[in-house]
Amino acid sequence: MDRRSVITGGAAVGAAAAASTLSSPAIAQRQRRLKMVTTWPPNFPGLGTAANDVARFISEATDGELDIRVYAAGELVPAFESFDAVSTGAAELYHGADYYWQGKHPAFAFFTAVPFGLNAAEMNAWLYHQGGQELWDELSAQFNVKPFGCANTGVQMGGWYNREINSIEDFSGLRIRMPGLGGEVMRRLGAAAVALPGGEIFQALQTGAIDATEWVGPWNDLAFGFYRVAQYYYGPGFHEPGALLAMGMNMDVWNSLTPAHQRIVKMAAAATTDRSLAEFNARNAGAMRELVEDHGVQMRKFPDEVMQEVGRVSGEVLREVAEHDELTRRVYDSFMAARQNGMAWGEWSEEGYAAIRRLDFPFE
Amino acid sequence: MDRRSVITGGAAVGAAAAASTLSSPAIAQRQRRLKMVTTWPPNFPGLGTAANDVARFISEATDGELDIRVYAAGELVPAFESFDAVSTGAAELYHGADYYWQGKHPAFAFFTAVPFGLNAAEMNAWLYHQGGQELWDELSAQFNVKPFGCANTGVQMGGWYNREINSIEDFSGLRIRMPGLGGEVMRRLGAAAVALPGGEIFQALQTGAIDATEWVGPWNDLAFGFYRVAQYYYGPGFHEPGALLAMGMNMDVWNSLTPAHQRIVKMAAAATTDRSLAEFNARNAGAMRELVEDHGVQMRKFPDEVMQEVGRVSGEVLREVAEHDELTRRVYDSFMAARQNGMAWGEWSEEGYAAIRRLDFPFE
Repeated sequence: MDRRSVITGGAAVGAAAAASTLSSPAIAQRQRRLKMVTTWPPNFPGLGTAANDVARFISEATDGELDIRVYAAGELVPAFESFDAVSTGAAELYHGADYYWQGKHPAFAFFTAVPFGLNAAEMNAWLYHQGGQELWDELSAQFNVKPFGCANTGVQMGGWYNREINSIEDFSGLRIRMPGLGGEVMRRLGAAAVALPGGEIFQALQTGAIDATEWVGPWNDLAFGFYRVAQYYYGPGFHEPGALLAMGMNMDVWNSLTPAHQRIVKMAAAATTDRSLAEFNARNAGAMRELVEDHGVQMRKFPDEVMQEVGRVSGEVLREVAEHDELTRRVYDSFMAARQNGMAWGEWSEEGYAAIRRLDFPFE
Repeated sequence: MDRRSVITGGAAVGAAAAASTLSSPAIAQRQRRLKMVTTWPPNFPGLGTAANDVARFISEATDGELDIRVYAAGELVPAFESFDAVSTGAAELYHGADYYWQGKHPAFAFFTAVPFGLNAAEMNAWLYHQGGQELWDELSAQFNVKPFGCANTGVQMGGWYNREINSIEDFSGLRIRMPGLGGEVMRRLGAAAVALPGGEIFQALQTGAIDATEWVGPWNDLAFGFYRVAQYYYGPGFHEPGALLAMGMNMDVWNSLTPAHQRIVKMAAAATTDRSLAEFNARNAGAMRELVEDHGVQMRKFPDEVMQEVGRVSGEVLREVAEHDELTRRVYDSFMAARQNGMAWGEWSEEGYAAIRRLDFPFE
């Protein structure tokens, strides 16, 4: 499809419905076609498929009244123009990761993931019950967008490297793909960090345009075949400890929905988060085994001294970002309060449980 | 309401709709009233409110076509008769915890939580993507029920005790409220374990009918006021490391729904799980502070040697339960495979991240 026709196609809803193959005029009149642009390669495991899922859930739950068609990165607009397309109304929805828009406003980074920030469970706790969603609404409303959490990758891996990372100096001069504030942390450590869309990473790594990349985790990284061009697989992903994906809806479209359809859209996004995080968790272990056993990948943990320094620089970057404006300050304060809560409870819950489960006793 | 009239009221849907106050006959005809019985005290934080939430989500998303009324434990049927009420069609839905039905079939325990079993994230990974839901469907279909995961408490606390637990012998002779297979583990350690509904625990503890109790976690336990009758608060909850709550729908009712309404019911349950786990995580830290600072509660971790022995006995109990029948064997095998996957990936994801986040570096 010609991109120009899409960008100027804010009134395409009626046209799309008229062009549909539905034979019943009564149904056709109630059907509303919505375009969802995404930052993902088509049907990409966990990411593109999350976009497909939420679109299907909404279409099914509304009995086709909201009929959503998903477009992969580049089909209607390039990956990183998805937000603008929805902001202007050229598309009704996007699915992506909001840290891709941190050039528009740095506070967006907090709504995907920041280095040493919230894990997936804490992110939900923040958004739903500690003021996070209200701040996100306020931020996105400046761009005429209504945002929803819609999938979460869980803890990501630290990335693929062609050399070992034994000291903090090993980041110096490294050309690495790392979006979000993790990229800024890398820059302060002397690396050259870039934010390529997923579909462009493999070639960049293969041609030597970059030396290293993070992407998501074993399941997704296996699909991209990074093991073919890099040997060391580092973890855990300090820079994205629970990356929330986002669905954004054009605010005028959102306001035009019935209360029932608004409820369905919200539920579909939450249900997608619930299923999506589960899928990453379910598939990563098997993919990790495959990477190691079938492809000879070397799994590595970053040394603690390296993580301490990366953590220190991460704190520095976050505190500076917080000074950008009053809204970012409030986002930072709220995010940090959620982080303290999460760590206080984590000691007694997930971390405490993980520790006793790994004690030495016969079980199975 | 008279309980007998409910138990025999399988055809009450039409009558309830006719008795509604809706003035529009067109709407009234499309509206279907459904009764949801629960195992919870009315509006109880996190549990009763999860039932309220899923009912409201479904009612809103269907524009009132499925109009669900929630009944607290004892309002229509006693807490532990909720399952039978739905199985027979006396009520259309229940919200509770499926390990309450382990007397009907021991495999039900695995779909809430078992000692040293899956955490909340692993539970979702199992249900959605590793065969768990299909096994649960098979089990519940024997009782004419369609089950859905619908809220999760996350890691629970180990419980309230009036004396310290310093060795495994300290469980001997203890009269403790602990349902599910955790209760069986306690019995093998010499305790007298009972499975009281939530609403009956406080009085039992206050009168000395029991010496100790587990319930959920700080937020919920604070609401019940257990700190007024027990001093030591032990954690983490080895016996319920991620208790999934369940919504069950009478199978005939489920089969009578349109595909759109089926999709809405599934989404509403998943969205409730997503929001619910977030709420437990958000509120537990503050409640824990309040228990310690305002009420003088003594937080304690079980000694490692105690947990090792409890873990060993837990494994023994689970292996024995697996021998009950062929279906329980398949549930056990599937559950254990998900547990192995979860622990393999956990080392690189949540546990690995928690470890580096607790390294010593300036951050905020």
